[in-house]
Amino acid sequence: MNKIYVVGIGPGAYDQMTGKAIQALRDSDVIIGYTVYVDLVKDHFSDKTFMTTPMKKEVDRCVLAFEEAQKGQTVSMICSGDAGVYGMAGLMYEVGVGYPQTELEIIPGVTAATGGAAVLGAPLIHDFCLISLSDLLTPWEKIEARLLGAAQADFVVCLYNPSSKKRHDYLKRACELLMTYKSPDTVCGIVSQIAREGEESRVMTLRELSDTQVDMFTTVFIGNSQTRNIGGKMVTPRGYRNV
Amino acid sequence: MNKIYVVGIGPGAYDQMTGKAIQALRDSDVIIGYTVYVDLVKDHFSDKTFMTTPMKKEVDRCVLAFEEAQKGQTVSMICSGDAGVYGMAGLMYEVGVGYPQTELEIIPGVTAATGGAAVLGAPLIHDFCLISLSDLLTPWEKIEARLLGAAQADFVVCLYNPSSKKRHDYLKRACELLMTYKSPDTVCGIVSQIAREGEESRVMTLRELSDTQVDMFTTVFIGNSQTRNIGGKMVTPRGYRNV
Repeated sequence: MNKIYVVGIGPGAYDQMTGKAIQALRDSDVIIGYTVYVDLVKDHFSDKTFMTTPMKKEVDRCVLAFEEAQKGQTVSMICSGDAGVYGMAGLMYEVGVGYPQTELEIIPGVTAATGGAAVLGAPLIHDFCLISLSDLLTPWEKIEARLLGAAQADFVVCLYNPSSKKRHDYLKRACELLMTYKSPDTVCGIVSQIAREGEESRVMTLRELSDTQVDMFTTVFIGNSQTRNIGGKMVTPRGYRNV
Repeated sequence: MNKIYVVGIGPGAYDQMTGKAIQALRDSDVIIGYTVYVDLVKDHFSDKTFMTTPMKKEVDRCVLAFEEAQKGQTVSMICSGDAGVYGMAGLMYEVGVGYPQTELEIIPGVTAATGGAAVLGAPLIHDFCLISLSDLLTPWEKIEARLLGAAQADFVVCLYNPSSKKRHDYLKRACELLMTYKSPDTVCGIVSQIAREGEESRVMTLRELSDTQVDMFTTVFIGNSQTRNIGGKMVTPRGYRNV
C-alpha cells in the first residue's frame, strides 16, 4: 500500500500552512501541482522534485501523482487553500478507483473564504454559502438557482471564481440576481491576492459591488441582512436575537 | 494603539494550527478562551497566562480581552476551528467599538467543515452551505428556510451544532426538511471529535442520518445530487458536466 498526501497549502503565505501540511511536504519525494501553487512553496522545499501541469489538465495531474506513487515515490498533490474546497481531493478519489493499492490522506488548509474573511473583518460569523461562478463544469442555470436560493434564505454568500477573461460580466449578473432578495445597501467586501504580495481589500455596498470589476484572484463576500460596516470592517453578528 | 490577536486554532490537534497562529500565541502574554479550547493548547504554551470564561459568557470574554490589552498585555483570544466561522471575531469587533485604541488582527484556521471533510473524503468540492442548527440566537423558522433553500438549490450542506441536550431531535427535523428536495439516498457523513482523541466518522444515506443520534462535537455533511460513496469515502464531483 502506498500513499499520496493531498495537501491544502492555505491562501499563499508560508506561515498560513498548518504544521501537518508542512510535515507532509517534508516527507514527500515528489510535489505535484498547478504551476502557480508550486511557485508559492518551492523555496521552502528546495530538495524536492517538483512536477507541474497547467490549468484544465487536472485529470492528467492526478494520473501523474498515482503513477509516481506506483514507482515507490512518496507524493504530495498540492492545492491552494483547502484541497477539499473546489480543490483536487475529489478528483483524486475518482481517478484513484483505478489505483486501489494507493491510499489518499487529505490534509486540510485555510481556504480563501476564511482567509479572506479574516482580512475583511468577520463576514462569515453566521450561516453562509460558497458558490463558484465558473460555468465550465456547472450549467449557469444551476448557478443562478443557487444565487437566488441563497439570497432568499438570507445567507451570507462567498463567491469563488467571480471572473475570468471569458466571464467578465458574471459578477454583475450575480449581483443583480442577489438583489432580487437582498437590499442594494447590503454590506459586501472583496479581497484579492489573499495572504500574498499585493493583497488588497475593500468594503462596499452590493450596489457598488455590481459595478466593480474583479479578477480571478479575488474572493467576493456578500453580507446577510444583519451584516454591518464597523469602522471599515465587514462584520456579521452571531445571530438575530440579542442575548 | 494596542493589539489583540483573534486566533483560530483549528479543529484540535496542535499540528493542524498554522504557523501564524502559533506565532501569535508565542507573542502573547495572555491567552483567553473557552475552557475546552484552552485545554487543547495549554501544554504547548506553558509560560503564558491563561484566562477562561464558560460557554454563553462570550461578551464577558471579549471585555476581558480588551481590559487585559488596555493594561498593556499582548492578548490572544482563541477559538476552535476558524475564529470567523461561528467564532468570536464578529463579537470582538462589536465589543471593540468601545475600545477604539485597540486593533484586532484575525488569524484564520482550519474550520470543522474542511477539517471534517478531509476525514470523510471530499464532500465539499462543489458549492456548499454551512448552517448551524442552534436556535439560541436565530429563530428556528429562519433555520428551516435555509435548510429548504439549500436543499432546493442542490447545495452540499454542512451542519454545525447539530444537537445538544435540549435539541436532541433537531438533526432529525433538519433531515426531514432536506428530504423535501433531496433524495433519501443522498450520500451523507458525520465526523465527531475531528483531529482529537476519539475521532470517529461514518458515511451513510440521508434516510439513515435522520435516525442517527449525534452529539455537539459532531459535524454533519449532506451531499448534493452528484455526491457518491467511493469505497467508503464521501466524494462530490467538481461539477455536473464531464469535461
